Amino acid sequence: MRNAVGRELPELIDGYQVKPYRGAYEGQPAPSPVHTMRRAGKSTSDTEKLVCSLEEAIRRVGLTDGMTISFHHSFREGDKVIGQVLAAIRGLGIKHLKFAPSAVVNIRNPSVADFVRDGTIERIEASGIRGELGDAVLEGLMRHPVILRPHGSRPRAIEAGELNIDVAFIGASASDEYGNATGQIGPNACGSLGYSFIDERSADKVVVITDHLVDFPCVPASISQQYVDVVVKVDEIGDPEKIGKGAARMTKNPRDLMIARRAADVMAASRRFRDGFSFQTGAGAISIACTNYLAQHMQERGITASFALGGMTASIVEMFQKKLVRVLECSQSFDSVAARAMADNPNIVEIDNAVYSNAFTKGALLDKLNFGVLAALEVDTDFNVNILTGSSGEMMGGLGGGPDVAAGADISIVCLPVLRGRTPSITRRVFTCCTPGETVAAVVTEAGIALNPRHAHYEELKEDLEKTNLKLVSIEYLQQLAESLTGVPAPIETTDRVVCIVEYRDGTVIDVIRQIKR
Amino acid sequence: MRNAVGRELPELIDGYQVKPYRGAYEGQPAPSPVHTMRRAGKSTSDTEKLVCSLEEAIRRVGLTDGMTISFHHSFREGDKVIGQVLAAIRGLGIKHLKFAPSAVVNIRNPSVADFVRDGTIERIEASGIRGELGDAVLEGLMRHPVILRPHGSRPRAIEAGELNIDVAFIGASASDEYGNATGQIGPNACGSLGYSFIDERSADKVVVITDHLVDFPCVPASISQQYVDVVVKVDEIGDPEKIGKGAARMTKNPRDLMIARRAADVMAASRRFRDGFSFQTGAGAISIACTNYLAQHMQERGITASFALGGMTASIVEMFQKKLVRVLECSQSFDSVAARAMADNPNIVEIDNAVYSNAFTKGALLDKLNFGVLAALEVDTDFNVNILTGSSGEMMGGLGGGPDVAAGADISIVCLPVLRGRTPSITRRVFTCCTPGETVAAVVTEAGIALNPRHAHYEELKEDLEKTNLKLVSIEYLQQLAESLTGVPAPIETTDRVVCIVEYRDGTVIDVIRQIKR
Repeated sequence: MRNAVGRELPELIDGYQVKPYRGAYEGQPAPSPVHTMRRAGKSTSDTEKLVCSLEEAIRRVGLTDGMTISFHHSFREGDKVIGQVLAAIRGLGIKHLKFAPSAVVNIRNPSVADFVRDGTIERIEASGIRGELGDAVLEGLMRHPVILRPHGSRPRAIEAGELNIDVAFIGASASDEYGNATGQIGPNACGSLGYSFIDERSADKVVVITDHLVDFPCVPASISQQYVDVVVKVDEIGDPEKIGKGAARMTKNPRDLMIARRAADVMAASRRFRDGFSFQTGAGAISIACTNYLAQHMQERGITASFALGGMTASIVEMFQKKLVRVLECSQSFDSVAARAMADNPNIVEIDNAVYSNAFTKGALLDKLNFGVLAALEVDTDFNVNILTGSSGEMMGGLGGGPDVAAGADISIVCLPVLRGRTPSITRRVFTCCTPGETVAAVVTEAGIALNPRHAHYEELKEDLEKTNLKLVSIEYLQQLAESLTGVPAPIETTDRVVCIVEYRDGTVIDVIRQIKR
Repeated sequence: MRNAVGRELPELIDGYQVKPYRGAYEGQPAPSPVHTMRRAGKSTSDTEKLVCSLEEAIRRVGLTDGMTISFHHSFREGDKVIGQVLAAIRGLGIKHLKFAPSAVVNIRNPSVADFVRDGTIERIEASGIRGELGDAVLEGLMRHPVILRPHGSRPRAIEAGELNIDVAFIGASASDEYGNATGQIGPNACGSLGYSFIDERSADKVVVITDHLVDFPCVPASISQQYVDVVVKVDEIGDPEKIGKGAARMTKNPRDLMIARRAADVMAASRRFRDGFSFQTGAGAISIACTNYLAQHMQERGITASFALGGMTASIVEMFQKKLVRVLECSQSFDSVAARAMADNPNIVEIDNAVYSNAFTKGALLDKLNFGVLAALEVDTDFNVNILTGSSGEMMGGLGGGPDVAAGADISIVCLPVLRGRTPSITRRVFTCCTPGETVAAVVTEAGIALNPRHAHYEELKEDLEKTNLKLVSIEYLQQLAESLTGVPAPIETTDRVVCIVEYRDGTVIDVIRQIKR
C-alpha cells in the first residue's frame, strides 16, 4: 500500500501492523482510557530505596529476559548512565531486552551495537539512532526493525499501550535517598529531565541513578518519590563538558550564517512577529546563529517574545536575561548554561515532553508557536523533509521534535544549504520522509527562500515576504540549481527488508527504511 | 461482620461492597495497572478553549445526568466556584450527579444540601461534609450513603477505578486562555492546588475556572494545559479574606495553649528531635500554637528541620523565613500568607496530594515525617480517634489527612482537652472511629500525656519522656477523669440505616455512621 506522502509500505512488518500516514492532521486517537503500566504500589516507608550497585537495583526491580527498559538522552554525548546499566544487565545474564530510550546517544567501549550483538538488546525503539548503531541498523544488524518516533509520539505511544516500559532507568544529577531527583543541580547537571516524566508516570518500575545524593527532600523534585522504586548511587553519571557536544555549537561557516540570517529575516518580516510572539529555534549550528539574528531584530524593533520552547541553549538564556523573552519552556537543555539556568529563574521552566510535543493531549505547547526553525538533511520538491539519512544511506540524525514542531508552529522554517559537499540537499524525492511537506511553510537556503503553496499560511507569508527584498524562489528552482551543480546522484540501493519504521507523531507510518546494499 | 477496630459492619450497603478494615498496615493494592479516566485527546490547537460562561463550559464538556463532578477545597470558606457551577448545572436541568470534591466546603444560598434536595446532586464522596450538609446527611438527607475518605485515599480510589471523575472543575486564581493555571498568584490567590493534581490527570474532562486571565504562558503552571479542555472566566472565584476562616486561627484559650505547649514538649523530648527532623502540625487552633512553641524549642536547642509538610500557615512560613525549616512541602495553604509564599520561594513547594498522603504510591512524603500533630473530637481507651462527629451525633469535622499522618509519622501526637463544655473527649468508645488506635503514639491533654502501649515506638517514646518532668498518665486515667467530671453521657441513638461510610486510607471500611435519631 501507499501512504499520503506516496511511500510504498508493507501491511505487516515482523508482526508490526502498519497504519499508513494519511495526512498531518488526520490522526485521531481511539477514545479509550489512557494506558499506564504503573501498578498500584504500596508505600515503601519501611523499606530503604537506596542501594549501592546497579546490579542490586536491577535485581530489586525484577528485570528479566525480554522486558523493556528506558532512558532519557539528556546527558547526550556525555552520558555515562546507559553504558553502566547495560553492562550491569549483561553481567547478570539478562537478554533479549527492548531498548526504548527517548533517543539513543553514542556510547563507546562497548557501544549499544555491541550490546545488540551479544544479545542483551533485541529490539530498539527511539527517536534517533545516530552514529555507529544507526549505520549498523541500516546494514541489517537487528533481527527486528527499529521503530523511530518523533518526540511527541513517544508519550502518545506509551499512553496508547503501544510501548510498555517495564523498567525506566533515570539518570539524575541530584537525588535524595527516596527518589526525589533533578537534573538542575549537582556537579553533573544536565538540565531538564522532561523526557523522563512520561517514563516516571508510566513505567512499571523506576530506578533513579545519581552520583550526587542530597539531603531529603531534594528540591526541585523534577522526578517525584511517589513513582520511584529504587535509588542507586554510582561514581559518575555523565560528563557535563560533553553534554552540549554534538548538538549545540555555534557556526562560523559564512554560508550557514547567511542561511541563519535569512531565516531570522523571514520571521521578522512576518505579521506574526509582534509583541508577545513565540518561537523555537533549536540547537543545530544554523539554529543558534538564527537565534542571535532574531534577538537583533527584536532589539531593533523593540519587540519581546512571550515564550521560547524546546531545547534551550546559552543563546536563548542570554535573550531571557536581556528580557527579550518572558518565559523559557525547556524540554531539554543543550548546554551547561541552559542546564543550570532553571534552578535560579522561576520563569525558566522544566516542562514535560508530553506538554511540549504530544499531539494527543488536550494541547501541546508547540501548538502555540508562531515560529519554528528546523534543520534538515534533505528537502524534496513536495517539501517533504528528511532528518534521518544521509546521501549514502547512512544514519545522520534523529527525528527529535522536528515533525512535531513543523506541525504545531504557525510558520515552520526549514534551513539547509542547497548542497553539502557534492551532494544536493534539495531533491526530487527525499530518501526518507520524516516531516510531511504540508507542515513546512518555508525552505530557506543560501540561494533563496521557497514558500510552500500547500501550507496553511502560504498566502499570508507570501504577502509579508513580498514586501521585503528577500529573494523568493520556487522549490523546483532550488532543486534544479542543486542538480545543475552536482548532477543526478546515483540512487541508494536497498534490499526489500525493512530495517527501520519511521512513525509520524500520530503513530501512523510515514516511511520505512530498507536495508542498504553496501 | 466486625472489623479490626471492633466495628459492626454490613457486608453490602446500597450496592457498596464492604471490605472490612484489617489493620493500619494490612491493606495491599491489587497488582493491577493504575486506572485513569482521561481519554487520549486530540490536540486542540485549532479550537479556542476559552469560554465566557459556565453554562457554555458545561455544554462543551458534555456533562449529563448521573455523571461525577469534582472540585478542590482550597478556597475553603471563601469558595465561590462550587456554588456558581452547581447553579449553572441546575439551570441546564442536569440531575443525579455524584458530587466528589476533595472536601465539601460550606456554601450558602443555596447550600449543597439544597442542591441535594432539588435532585442536582444524588451522591456525595468527599473527605468531610462539615456544617449544615453534614448534619442533614446524618439525619437521612441522602438516598445513598455518603462515602468519606481521608485525603490519601482519594487519589488511591481514583487510581483504583473506585471513583471515576467525568468532569473536574478546577478553580484557579490565575490562568492563561489555554488552561495553564495556578493558585499562587492573582487577586484571589488560594495557594497550593495540590488536591486537584489527581483530578487533572485522571478526569475525563477538565474545566479551569478563573477570575484572572494572564498572558500565555501562565507561570507557574500548577495545572497544565495538556489536561485542560475548557477555560472559563467568571467575575469572582473566591474571597481571600475567608480562605483561612474556619481552619487556621490562633487560640488564646489558656487550656488549649497548655495542650499545645505540652505537645511541643513531647516532640522536643524525643530522640527524633534533632537536626534535620521533620514535622506536620496542621491548622487547628492548638496546632498553630504548637507550631510556635516548637519553633521556640528549635531556637533554644539550635536545631533546624529538613521539611514541614501538609497544610501551611503563616506560622510555618515565619519559621521558614527564620531558616528554622529548609523546605515547606505544601499540599494546601491555610491562609493568605501561606498562599502567596510559594510564588517567591523555590523551597516552598506546591505538592501533589498523592505524594503527600497516598499510601499506595511508591512512597508518600508523610512516611518521612518524624512528628505529626493531630486534632481530635474524641479519643477512646483503645486510642481510636474520632474526627468527624460531635457529642450529639452532629457532623463536626472532616477526615482530612488525619488518618494518613497518624499512620505515616514516626510519632503521632493527638491533642485534645479532656472535656469540651460538659462533654468528655476521652471516652470508652468513640462514636465514629476514623483513625485506628495503633497509629496513635501519644494523646496530649491538659491533665497529662497518655502513651499508647500498642504503638510501634512506645518503648522509645516512654524512655525519652521519662527523662523529663512531663506528666505521663494512662488513657484509662484520662477517661475516668473525664467521666468523673461529667458523668456518663447518654448514648447517641441511631437507626439501622447507614448514612455515611468511613473509609480508611487503604479503601477498607473502618466505620459507618448510622442515621441519627432526633
